[in-house]
Amino acid sequence: MAIYIVCRRLATNQQVTGSLRYATNWRWYSTSSFREERDTFGPIQVPSDKLWGAQTQRSLQNFDIGGPRERMPEPIIRAFGILKKCAAKVNMEYGLDPSIGKAIMQAAQEVAEGKLNDHFPLVVWQTGSGTQSNMNANEVIANRAAEILGHKRGKKFVHPNDHVNRSQSSNDTFPTVMHIAAAMEVNSRLIPKLKTLHTSLHSKSIEFKEIVKIGRTHTQDATPLTLGQEFSGYSTQVKYGIDRVTCTLPRLYQLAQGGTAVGTGLNTKKGFDVKIAVAVAEETNLPFVTAENKFEALAAHDAFVETSGALNTIAASLMKIANDIRLLGSGPRCGLGELILPENEPGSSIMPGKVNPTQCEALTMVCAQVMGNHVAITVGGSNGHFELNVFKPMIANGLLHSLRLLGDASSSFEKNCVRGIEANRERISKLLHESLMLVTSLNPKIGYDNAAAVAKKAHKEGSTLKEAALKLGVLTSEEFDSLVVPEKMIGPSD
Amino acid sequence: MAIYIVCRRLATNQQVTGSLRYATNWRWYSTSSFREERDTFGPIQVPSDKLWGAQTQRSLQNFDIGGPRERMPEPIIRAFGILKKCAAKVNMEYGLDPSIGKAIMQAAQEVAEGKLNDHFPLVVWQTGSGTQSNMNANEVIANRAAEILGHKRGKKFVHPNDHVNRSQSSNDTFPTVMHIAAAMEVNSRLIPKLKTLHTSLHSKSIEFKEIVKIGRTHTQDATPLTLGQEFSGYSTQVKYGIDRVTCTLPRLYQLAQGGTAVGTGLNTKKGFDVKIAVAVAEETNLPFVTAENKFEALAAHDAFVETSGALNTIAASLMKIANDIRLLGSGPRCGLGELILPENEPGSSIMPGKVNPTQCEALTMVCAQVMGNHVAITVGGSNGHFELNVFKPMIANGLLHSLRLLGDASSSFEKNCVRGIEANRERISKLLHESLMLVTSLNPKIGYDNAAAVAKKAHKEGSTLKEAALKLGVLTSEEFDSLVVPEKMIGPSD
Amino acid sequence: MAIYIVCRRLATNQQVTGSLRYATNWRWYSTSSFREERDTFGPIQVPSDKLWGAQTQRSLQNFDIGGPRERMPEPIIRAFGILKKCAAKVNMEYGLDPSIGKAIMQAAQEVAEGKLNDHFPLVVWQTGSGTQSNMNANEVIANRAAEILGHKRGKKFVHPNDHVNRSQSSNDTFPTVMHIAAAMEVNSRLIPKLKTLHTSLHSKSIEFKEIVKIGRTHTQDATPLTLGQEFSGYSTQVKYGIDRVTCTLPRLYQLAQGGTAVGTGLNTKKGFDVKIAVAVAEETNLPFVTAENKFEALAAHDAFVETSGALNTIAASLMKIANDIRLLGSGPRCGLGELILPENEPGSSIMPGKVNPTQCEALTMVCAQVMGNHVAITVGGSNGHFELNVFKPMIANGLLHSLRLLGDASSSFEKNCVRGIEANRERISKLLHESLMLVTSLNPKIGYDNAAAVAKKAHKEGSTLKEAALKLGVLTSEEFDSLVVPEKMIGPSD
Amino acid sequence: MAIYIVCRRLATNQQVTGSLRYATNWRWYSTSSFREERDTFGPIQVPSDKLWGAQTQRSLQNFDIGGPRERMPEPIIRAFGILKKCAAKVNMEYGLDPSIGKAIMQAAQEVAEGKLNDHFPLVVWQTGSGTQSNMNANEVIANRAAEILGHKRGKKFVHPNDHVNRSQSSNDTFPTVMHIAAAMEVNSRLIPKLKTLHTSLHSKSIEFKEIVKIGRTHTQDATPLTLGQEFSGYSTQVKYGIDRVTCTLPRLYQLAQGGTAVGTGLNTKKGFDVKIAVAVAEETNLPFVTAENKFEALAAHDAFVETSGALNTIAASLMKIANDIRLLGSGPRCGLGELILPENEPGSSIMPGKVNPTQCEALTMVCAQVMGNHVAITVGGSNGHFELNVFKPMIANGLLHSLRLLGDASSSFEKNCVRGIEANRERISKLLHESLMLVTSLNPKIGYDNAAAVAKKAHKEGSTLKEAALKLGVLTSEEFDSLVVPEKMIGPSD
Repeated sequence: MAIYIVCRRLATNQQVTGSLRYATNWRWYSTSSFREERDTFGPIQVPSDKLWGAQTQRSLQNFDIGGPRERMPEPIIRAFGILKKCAAKVNMEYGLDPSIGKAIMQAAQEVAEGKLNDHFPLVVWQTGSGTQSNMNANEVIANRAAEILGHKRGKKFVHPNDHVNRSQSSNDTFPTVMHIAAAMEVNSRLIPKLKTLHTSLHSKSIEFKEIVKIGRTHTQDATPLTLGQEFSGYSTQVKYGIDRVTCTLPRLYQLAQGGTAVGTGLNTKKGFDVKIAVAVAEETNLPFVTAENKFEALAAHDAFVETSGALNTIAASLMKIANDIRLLGSGPRCGLGELILPENEPGSSIMPGKVNPTQCEALTMVCAQVMGNHVAITVGGSNGHFELNVFKPMIANGLLHSLRLLGDASSSFEKNCVRGIEANRERISKLLHESLMLVTSLNPKIGYDNAAAVAKKAHKEGSTLKEAALKLGVLTSEEFDSLVVPEKMIGPSD
Repeated sequence: MAIYIVCRRLATNQQVTGSLRYATNWRWYSTSSFREERDTFGPIQVPSDKLWGAQTQRSLQNFDIGGPRERMPEPIIRAFGILKKCAAKVNMEYGLDPSIGKAIMQAAQEVAEGKLNDHFPLVVWQTGSGTQSNMNANEVIANRAAEILGHKRGKKFVHPNDHVNRSQSSNDTFPTVMHIAAAMEVNSRLIPKLKTLHTSLHSKSIEFKEIVKIGRTHTQDATPLTLGQEFSGYSTQVKYGIDRVTCTLPRLYQLAQGGTAVGTGLNTKKGFDVKIAVAVAEETNLPFVTAENKFEALAAHDAFVETSGALNTIAASLMKIANDIRLLGSGPRCGLGELILPENEPGSSIMPGKVNPTQCEALTMVCAQVMGNHVAITVGGSNGHFELNVFKPMIANGLLHSLRLLGDASSSFEKNCVRGIEANRERISKLLHESLMLVTSLNPKIGYDNAAAVAKKAHKEGSTLKEAALKLGVLTSEEFDSLVVPEKMIGPSD
Repeated sequence: MAIYIVCRRLATNQQVTGSLRYATNWRWYSTSSFREERDTFGPIQVPSDKLWGAQTQRSLQNFDIGGPRERMPEPIIRAFGILKKCAAKVNMEYGLDPSIGKAIMQAAQEVAEGKLNDHFPLVVWQTGSGTQSNMNANEVIANRAAEILGHKRGKKFVHPNDHVNRSQSSNDTFPTVMHIAAAMEVNSRLIPKLKTLHTSLHSKSIEFKEIVKIGRTHTQDATPLTLGQEFSGYSTQVKYGIDRVTCTLPRLYQLAQGGTAVGTGLNTKKGFDVKIAVAVAEETNLPFVTAENKFEALAAHDAFVETSGALNTIAASLMKIANDIRLLGSGPRCGLGELILPENEPGSSIMPGKVNPTQCEALTMVCAQVMGNHVAITVGGSNGHFELNVFKPMIANGLLHSLRLLGDASSSFEKNCVRGIEANRERISKLLHESLMLVTSLNPKIGYDNAAAVAKKAHKEGSTLKEAALKLGVLTSEEFDSLVVPEKMIGPSD
Repeated sequence: MAIYIVCRRLATNQQVTGSLRYATNWRWYSTSSFREERDTFGPIQVPSDKLWGAQTQRSLQNFDIGGPRERMPEPIIRAFGILKKCAAKVNMEYGLDPSIGKAIMQAAQEVAEGKLNDHFPLVVWQTGSGTQSNMNANEVIANRAAEILGHKRGKKFVHPNDHVNRSQSSNDTFPTVMHIAAAMEVNSRLIPKLKTLHTSLHSKSIEFKEIVKIGRTHTQDATPLTLGQEFSGYSTQVKYGIDRVTCTLPRLYQLAQGGTAVGTGLNTKKGFDVKIAVAVAEETNLPFVTAENKFEALAAHDAFVETSGALNTIAASLMKIANDIRLLGSGPRCGLGELILPENEPGSSIMPGKVNPTQCEALTMVCAQVMGNHVAITVGGSNGHFELNVFKPMIANGLLHSLRLLGDASSSFEKNCVRGIEANRERISKLLHESLMLVTSLNPKIGYDNAAAVAKKAHKEGSTLKEAALKLGVLTSEEFDSLVVPEKMIGPSD
C-alpha cells in the first residue's frame, strides 16, 4: 500500500501503485506506508518515513505554491534546532521533565546539524507568521525525541506543543530564528567572504601601485592616476561594506523570544526571555540578547529591512566594481584593454583570445537580485498590522537569499577573477602617453592659451602632443620631455 | 565504488586520481565511475551517469553560487528541448544529416518533457548570456542522441556545437528560450489561474449582490454599497490584470532566433529565422514570430521588463484585495467581522473561533516578492552593454519565479479562501444600521442643519440616529423609517 | 500695508489682529488685507488677493510638508479646470441655474488655461484622497465665478459645494483629474517627444547603414555589424516604448466620474457618468469613457501602476541606449571613440577635445528617478483600503513627474545629442580591421585549427591577422584579402 | 528693452518686445537689460540682474528638463556657500590674495545664508557631475565678490575658476557639498523631528499604560496587552530609526574635498584636504573629516545609498505606525474605534463625526515616496563608471528630498495627530470583554477541553464566555470573575 505527495517535484522512476490521491495538483512519491497523526482538526495521514505531524501535513496540502525550491531556507531550519535545544534547556530550569528535556535537546541538535532537513518540506509561502514551520519543528523534534526515548511516532509521548513549544509561541519563535539565522549567515558567510575579497582587492592595489594610467571621468579621458589608486577605491568600498553590515548587527542580535503571543510574555515566567537569549548566545558564540521591547520585535521587522539596506549598499558597490573591471578588461583589441582577466572557460569556439568576464556577470546579476529582494523586504516590512507582522517567511527568505548569493558570488568573483587579474602594462602605457590631457602640465611653462593650442592641434591632426608642440615651436623636445611626466600628476604637490 | 559533487567548484590544476575528491566544499553522491569529456580547454572528468559534457562541468566548478535551489528554472530547460527539436527540424531542410537530425529531435523531445532534468545542474548565477546552459542543452542532447544512434557518450558522434547548436549561438538561443518559457507560463499557468480567480470573485459579487453594507473610505465609515459591488471591484481588478499581461504578449511572442552572435544572423541562411519561429509556433500552439529587429532582441530584454511590469500591477491588485478580505474578515469579536473566511487549519491551540487568514498572508507575501523581482529585472534590463544584455539568466529566473508564484498563489487563494467566503449578514446589517452616515438621506426632508444636529447628537450620546431624531423632535418614527433606507443609497437616482 | 504666509501652518484659536503674523515658520508676503472665509469648522482668515477659501487655508496650515516645490502638479490643476467646466455643462442639463453654470464654465476655463495657478498653493502631501485640492478647485472657481457675476469673494453666491462640486465627490473627481492629466501628458508630451527621438535614431541608423564596425558582446570584441544595425536596435527600443505606453491608454481613458463617494453614484442621476465622460472627451479630443466599474476606479489605481510600468520599461530602454552612446563615444584617445558626440558646453577649462556626454548623464539620471517613482507608485497602489485608495496625490504626482522628466529629457537628448552624433569612421575602421575575430571567415578555407593558430599567434604577438597568416604560410596575401571581408559578415547568407 | 527665459514658467502678462529669442521652447520674462559673459565657447548674453555667468547660462539652455520645481535643492546651494567660504579661507593660507579671499568669503556667506538663491536657476537634470552647479556657485560668488570690491559683473576681476574654484574641481566639490548638505539636514531637520515624534509616542505609551485592550495578530483577535505596550512598540521603532540614521553618519562626515579631478589631488598642495575639512567642521559644528580614500569618494556614493537605506527603514516603520493608528481609529461606528484621532478639518459636509486620518495619509504617502527615492538612489549609486559617478545631482536630490519629506511629515504627524490621540476607553473595554480569547485563562482551572467547549459555545451562540461557562455548568459566576482577569494577562508570571 502506499503513496504520496508532498508537493511537487518527485524522484525519477517512481513507481506508484495502490492509491490515495489527495488532489489533482499533487505529485506522488513512493512510500511504504502511512501513519495517522492528529491535531484539533482531526486525523490526517502522514508518510510513515517522515517525522512531521498533522499541522505540517495540512500546510503541505493547503499551500501548493512554488514547489520544492521554495522550501523554507536551511538556515531557518537549523536555527529552529538551536532555539528548541536552548528552550528545552531553559525549560528544564522551570520544571520540564529532564528525561524529556534531554531527548528534545538531542533531537533539536540533529535539526541544528541539518540531519533532519528532509523532514522540513514546507514552503516559504505559508502563514505569514511562520507558525506552520514552527509546528513543523515542534512535530519533528517531538517525534524524534519520542523515538530516542523508545516511543513511537505520532503518539505524542513527547508533545509538540506542551513540551517542545513550552513557553513559546510561533509569534516569538519565528522572529527569533529569523534573527539567529541571519546573524549566523552574516558572521559565518558574508563577512568572511567580503574580507577575503577586500584582502584580494587590497593586494592588487599594492601590486599595481606603480602603474600610472589614464583616469576617466564621465567615461572620458581625464588626468592620470595609478592602477593601484583605482583599486584602492574598490577595496575601500568593500571595507566600508563590511562596516555597514556590522553596524546593523546590534539590532539583529536582539531576540524576540519571551514575547509569546503578542509581546507580553503571557505564559512565560519572569526571566525566561533573558535566560533563553543567554543560552542561544552560548550555543552560537554570538552576542545575542533579549529584545528590549518585545512588541516591536513581533510587530515589525525593521532590523531585517535595515540589514537588507546594508546588503543593498554592498550590492551597489559590487555592481560598480564588477562593471569597471569588465570595461577595463574589454577587448582584446577593440576595447579599453587595460586589465587581463583570467580565462576560466572557453569564451567562444570561434575566437581565441576572447575572454568573457563571466564572473563579473554572475556577480552583477546577484547584485540586481539583492536590490530586488531589498524592495520585497521593504514592502513586507512596512505592511505589518497591529501586534504581528505577517510577512515573516518572505522577509526571512529574502534576506537569507541575499546573504547567500552575495557571499557566494563575492567568493567566486574573488577566487575566479580578482585574484588572477593582471595589468596590461603595455596597453596602459600606450593609452596614457597618447592622452591629450597631459597637456595640463605645460600650463605653467607656456601658458593656458599655448597649451590649448597644442592640444587642439594634436586633437585635430591626430598627432601626439609632443609632435604638435614641436610643430608650433613652443617648446623644445627636451623641454617637453622634462615637463610632461604623468608620474608627477598622481598626487598633491609639496 | 565512488562518489561526488553535485554542484561545486574545484581548484585549477588539481590532480584527481582514484575515487576522486574534488574539493572539500563539494557534496558527494555515489556513482560508479567517470568519463572524460573535452572542450577547447582540454579534458575534464564528468560523472558517467550524467549526459552533460565538458563545458557544463566547468561551469559547475566555476560558479558555486547559491546551491541547488538556484538551478536554472525548469521552464527554461523544457524550452531548450522545444527549441533544439525545432532547430534540428529546420536544419534538416538546410542539409543536416536526417539520421542525426531525427535523433536530436528525439533527444530534445525528452528534454522538453522534463525527462532529463537531472542532467541540467547549472545555476542561474553563471555567465550572463546563459551560454553555459545553452551548452548544457547541446551537450546533453548530443550525448543522448548519440546513444539513441548506438554510440557512446563523450565521443561526439553527434556534436554539441556542429549538430545540435547548428546555425545558432547562445546569444540568440537563450533569449529565444526565455521568450518561449515565459509565454508558455503566462498562457498555461498564470492566465488560467487568474481566470479561475476572476470567476470565483465574480460569483461572489453575484452571490452578495443584495447585501447592503457600510462603505469605508479613509478606513472610516462612509455611505453604503452592496457587498456584491465591493467584490465587483475586486473581480474587475483581476479581469484587467489578465488584460494587462495579455497586452504584453505580442512582444513576448517575438523570437530572437536567427540573430546568432550579435543580431546579424551570421552563419545562418536567409529564411532560417522565419522557419524556426514557425516551427516553434507549431510545437507550442502559440503565435510566435521572428523578431522584427534581432539587434534589439539580443541587446535588450525590454519585453521582460514590460511583462514584469504587468505582473507588478497584478501584484498591487492582489495585495489590495487580500488586505481588504483579511480586514473585512477580522475578528471574530473585536474586528470588522463582515466576512467569514474558511478555516483550513488550527488557528491556535488555545482559541477556538480564531481563523487566521493564512491564504491572504501567503498571497500578499508573494505580491511583495513579485514587486521585488520586478526591480531586479528592471535593474538587469537597464544594464545591457552594446550588442548583448548579460543579465539574461537573472531576468529569466525573476520573471519565471514571479509567474510561478503569482499563478500558484492565486490558485491557492481561490481554492482555499475566496471560494469559501461567506458573508456575516447579521454583523453587516448591525454595522450598517448603527452608522451615522445614513443621516444623509434626511437632508432633503429636514435640511442639512437639522440632519447635522441629529448626527452630532447621536455621535455624542452614542445613540442611534433614530433615537436622536425622535429626541430632537424633527421627525416621527414612521417618517424616519420611511426615509432612512440604505437600500436606496446604492446607486444613482432616476 | 502688510504681510504673510505662503504656505505654512498656524495654531488653532489664534487671535490675529493688525498686520498679522501667523507663526514664525510662515513665509511672509505683502498683501493689503485679509477677508474671512468659513466652513463647518468656523471662520478663518484668507489673504484678500487669493481666490481660495477656508478649506484650502486649513490644508495650508495643517500640511507644512516639503515647501512650495511640492505643490500639486500643474497638469492636475488644469485637469480640474477641464473637469469642473464639463461638470457645470452637464449639471445645467440636470437643472443647474444657467447663469451660474456659465460663470462656472468661464472660471473653470481660466483654471484649465493655467491663469489661476497662483491660487493653488496646496502640496501633494495632504489628505490621501486629494479632497483638499478638489476643494481648492471648488473654492477658487466659486469665488471667481461669483466675481464674474458681480459678487464678492467669500460670500458664496456661487457655492463651492452646492454649485461647483454638484453631483461630485472628491472621491470621484480626484481620480478623474488624475486620468485626464496623465492621458493628456502621455499624448501631448511623452509620445510626441519619443516619436521625435525615434525618428532621429532611425535617421541615424540609415545614415550609418554602410559603416561596418566591430560588434561587442559581454563588453568583448565579437563579430561585426553595421553602425546602422546597432542604431536600429535603439530605434526599435524607442518604437516599442511608444507601443508599450499606448497599450495602457484604454485603461487610462476610463473616468471615475459618477461614482461619487464610494462608487455607487449616490447623489447623481442616471446617465450623469456617461455624459460627463463625453464632455471631457470633447473638451480634450481624447477618447475618454466612463469607467465600467466605479468601485475599482476609486479603490485602486492599477491603471497608474500599469502606465508607470510602461514608463519604467522606457526608462530601462533609454538607460541602455544612453549608456551605449557614452561608451561608444568615450575618448577622445583612451576610450572606444567610435562616435563623436556634439559639444554643447566646455568640458573642462584644461583639456580641449574633452566632450562630456552630459545629455546622456541627464537622461540616465532621469531614468533612475523614473524607476524609483515606479516603486513609490507601486507601493501606494498596493496599499488601498476598502472603497478608497488614499495614496492618490502621491501616485498622481509620481506618474506626472515621470512623464514630464522622460518627455523633457528625451527631447533634450534628441536635440542636443542624438541629432548631432557623427561616426568616427577612421577609428571604427581601424578597430574593425585589428579585430582578431575576423579570423572566423577563414574557417571554411583553412579549417578551424589553422584559423585558431592564426588568431592565437596574432593575439600573442600583437600582430594583425594577416601578418600572422602570412608568417604561418597558410594563405597568400591575395587569398587573405579576398576572404577577410567584414562587409560579408553582417547578415545571413543566401 | 527686454527679454528672457530662464527656464520655463514665467510671469503672467509679460510684455515681450524687441527680440532675442533663444529657442522656441524657451519662455520669456522681462528684464531691463543684458550683459555679455564669456567662457571658452565664446560670448553669451546673460540677464543683467543675475549674478551667474556664461556656463550657467549655457546649462539653462541645454537642459530644459522639468521646469523650476526641479531646481537644485536649496541645501546644496547653501552648502556651496559654506564650502566656497572655507576654500577661500584655506586658499589664503596657500597664497590667495587676502583682499580677494575676504571678498569671496563675504559673498559665499551670502550664498550660505540663502540670500542669493534666485541666482541659482539650474535644474537637477544636468551634467551628472554637478559641474554646472559648481560653476554656477563659482560665477555667482565671483561676480558678487567683484561687486563687493567695487568692480563690475562679468569682468572677472574675481575669477570663477582661478580664484573661487582654486585648488578645487567639480569632481571633489560636488560630492563635498552633497555630504555637507545631507549631514546638516540629518542633524538639523530629521533627527530633531524624529526625537519629537519619539517623545510624543513615548508619552502616549505612558499615558495609556493602564488601558488593557485586546491584542490582534494576523488582524484577528488575540491575547490582551495594554495600549501603552502597543505604543511602546511604536516609540521603540522611532528610537531605533534615530539610531539607524546616526550609524551612517561617520561615512557621511567624510569629505571628498582635496581629491580634485580623479581623486589624486592634482593641483592641490599637501594638507589642503585636511585643512578644508577642519574649516568646514568649524563652520558647521559637525565633525567632518577628510575622506580616507578620495578615489572611493568621487567614484561611488555608497554613503548616500547607505543613508537612504536608513531612511527607507524609517519609512517602513512609520508606514506601519500610521497604518495601525488609522485602523485603530477607524469608525466611528463601524470600525475598530479604539483611538480617537484629532479633527483638523471638515471630514465631510454630510457626516458629522467622520474624522479622516489625513495626517496618517500624508505620512504614508511620504513613506512610499521615500521607498521610491531609495530605489532611484540605489540605481544611480550602482551605475558609476571608472573615476566618477555621474548620477550625483539625482542622488543628492533624492536623499535631500527624502530627508525633507520625512522630517516635515514626522513633525506634522506628531503635531496634528499623535499629540492629540485619545483612547476610547469605553470601546476598548467593551471589545476586550467580548473577546473569546480570554478563555485562555480558564485552562489551568477547568482544563483545555472544557475551556474549548466554553469558547466554541460562546462563538456559536454569539454569547459571552461567562454566559457559555455558566450554561455549561463548569464554573460559578464568582469563579469566572476571579479567573478571567485580562489585567493579569499582560506580562510573564512570577
